[in-house]
Amino acid sequence: MNTEQIVLASRPVGLPTPVNFKVENATLPELQKDEVLLQGMFYSVDPYMRGRMNAGESYVPPFEIDKPLEGGVIAKVVTSKSEKFKTGDVVSARLPWQVQAIAPAKVLQRVDETLAPASYYLGILGMPGLTAYFGFLKIGKPKKGETVVISGAAGAVGIVVGQLAKIYGCRVIGIAGTDDKAELLIKEFGFNDVINYKDTKDINATLKETCPAGVDVYFDNVGGEISDAVVRQMKRLGRIILCGQIALYNSTEIPMGPRLQPILLTKSILMQGFIVGNYQSQFPEGIQQLGTWLREGKLKYKETIVEGFHQLPAALLGLFKGDNTGKMVVQA
Amino acid sequence: MNTEQIVLASRPVGLPTPVNFKVENATLPELQKDEVLLQGMFYSVDPYMRGRMNAGESYVPPFEIDKPLEGGVIAKVVTSKSEKFKTGDVVSARLPWQVQAIAPAKVLQRVDETLAPASYYLGILGMPGLTAYFGFLKIGKPKKGETVVISGAAGAVGIVVGQLAKIYGCRVIGIAGTDDKAELLIKEFGFNDVINYKDTKDINATLKETCPAGVDVYFDNVGGEISDAVVRQMKRLGRIILCGQIALYNSTEIPMGPRLQPILLTKSILMQGFIVGNYQSQFPEGIQQLGTWLREGKLKYKETIVEGFHQLPAALLGLFKGDNTGKMVVQA
Repeated sequence: MNTEQIVLASRPVGLPTPVNFKVENATLPELQKDEVLLQGMFYSVDPYMRGRMNAGESYVPPFEIDKPLEGGVIAKVVTSKSEKFKTGDVVSARLPWQVQAIAPAKVLQRVDETLAPASYYLGILGMPGLTAYFGFLKIGKPKKGETVVISGAAGAVGIVVGQLAKIYGCRVIGIAGTDDKAELLIKEFGFNDVINYKDTKDINATLKETCPAGVDVYFDNVGGEISDAVVRQMKRLGRIILCGQIALYNSTEIPMGPRLQPILLTKSILMQGFIVGNYQSQFPEGIQQLGTWLREGKLKYKETIVEGFHQLPAALLGLFKGDNTGKMVVQA
Repeated sequence: MNTEQIVLASRPVGLPTPVNFKVENATLPELQKDEVLLQGMFYSVDPYMRGRMNAGESYVPPFEIDKPLEGGVIAKVVTSKSEKFKTGDVVSARLPWQVQAIAPAKVLQRVDETLAPASYYLGILGMPGLTAYFGFLKIGKPKKGETVVISGAAGAVGIVVGQLAKIYGCRVIGIAGTDDKAELLIKEFGFNDVINYKDTKDINATLKETCPAGVDVYFDNVGGEISDAVVRQMKRLGRIILCGQIALYNSTEIPMGPRLQPILLTKSILMQGFIVGNYQSQFPEGIQQLGTWLREGKLKYKETIVEGFHQLPAALLGLFKGDNTGKMVVQA
């Protein structure tokens, strides 16, 4: 059986362009036991995909030349040889950029369209939303009245963390890189304040002014010097959630920085790294709770939907031109 | 009422000598409601007291000139104006170096001599033992078969952590600074192996050899480059307990070192600082459990007892000449 796929034609230098991609025909093998044939509905495009277009080693392997790109996809079951799924079921999975694809049933997550639109399962009810949910609640353990600081606050994860912190009665300070983002976070998503770190002469002094009582929970999406400054403002028994570290993307050597252990020790602070997969068995609980808050209007979500499978490369390129507000997805 | 006290006569330069101390008479005020009059039985002398003899700021305030030194003391109640204690009760508290002293009842911990000798409440049933107990069990959460590494392993805390790890069925690797300590830890306290870091050319390579499967729990009493090496060998979902950091004692500036967040993130590692006081409400449980293991022979404890209140300065100075095996205490 034939289908179409979008492959990496060449590795970009600097910003990717349309010539780095190619639409090709592909032949699907015969469906085996416990597999399903899927028809793509929504495809996620994400900034981290740029890194996978490079040849270099990273914490995820690079895309291969002449092989399809891959990412989060919401798909409908066309044919099933699994007892778990039947024709018409909607599922979420990490899949190649193909119009149709075959996948083992065990990698599929069921999508509940009565809770929220299917595309939401690529964003607030998908990896970014669940990352925010489990990292902030299970490690951060927020309490009413606490001060929460979020770096990379305007990102897909940061925006959800900030709203969760408001639901839990916290004071929420974001750190972001443009005034537009700062305004969006305050006006649309209820952040109490946002620090534009590019516009700040002394991040330590600004943090101290903005969080005069100190920081209880720090949700760290970036690492580096911004984090050094936040850690200095942490209160006794504070919690630091490590969710992203710029250094990871750019460097194989471990960079130097101030030793944080003396601060963590004298203030009895917890610092913990995690990946959302650690909480896989609790995903249904997380999706249910996030979906409920969405319906109640306690969580807001923005997405930009681009129409057409062939538009996947253009949508990805659009991310780097700021074509999107909120999460960018492509509808096949 | 009169008593005797030992005061700081002058601040030492380098190793302290007897001239830095002076025995003086002191007058006790009248006993108030909710206070007790105490007669000292056992006094703790500890290496950290040397730091408090300096004028400089540290994480504990310095001793004052012409004021009594202070530390952990086991004492007997002489007169009580508190409903909680009666004459003859034995208690533990942080008290001045005085033959008799007055203290509010609320700072006293009751000592159960049926569980273990009273002096043990300055060591394995006191701060060092409880620090090991709560740090290792509550933060380290050891599981059978895991590999535990302890820096400063021959210290009062490290020796207890190692024995607890054995009780929990772990493989225990100590890091210490002399071959004598290494031998003691292996032969007397059941450590599986000890790395003499002063004798090791490449601590990273030695750790890799000694812990080929990686490290699950790291109990860190020292910090610095030894810890950098251990952190590199941590396994996924590992736990790092921050109990001591040499940098704390010597430096007010934060020293530089490799950024550990990328390692903590990619391996989902927890790093947590603590002080034993965080677990105050659970001290009775900890003392009971440690006392039970002592009686069952699962925990070993060594102490050196020096006789005579006036010997307190000599006993403290003796710590720096290696006069003691295990915990050093003075019996009044």
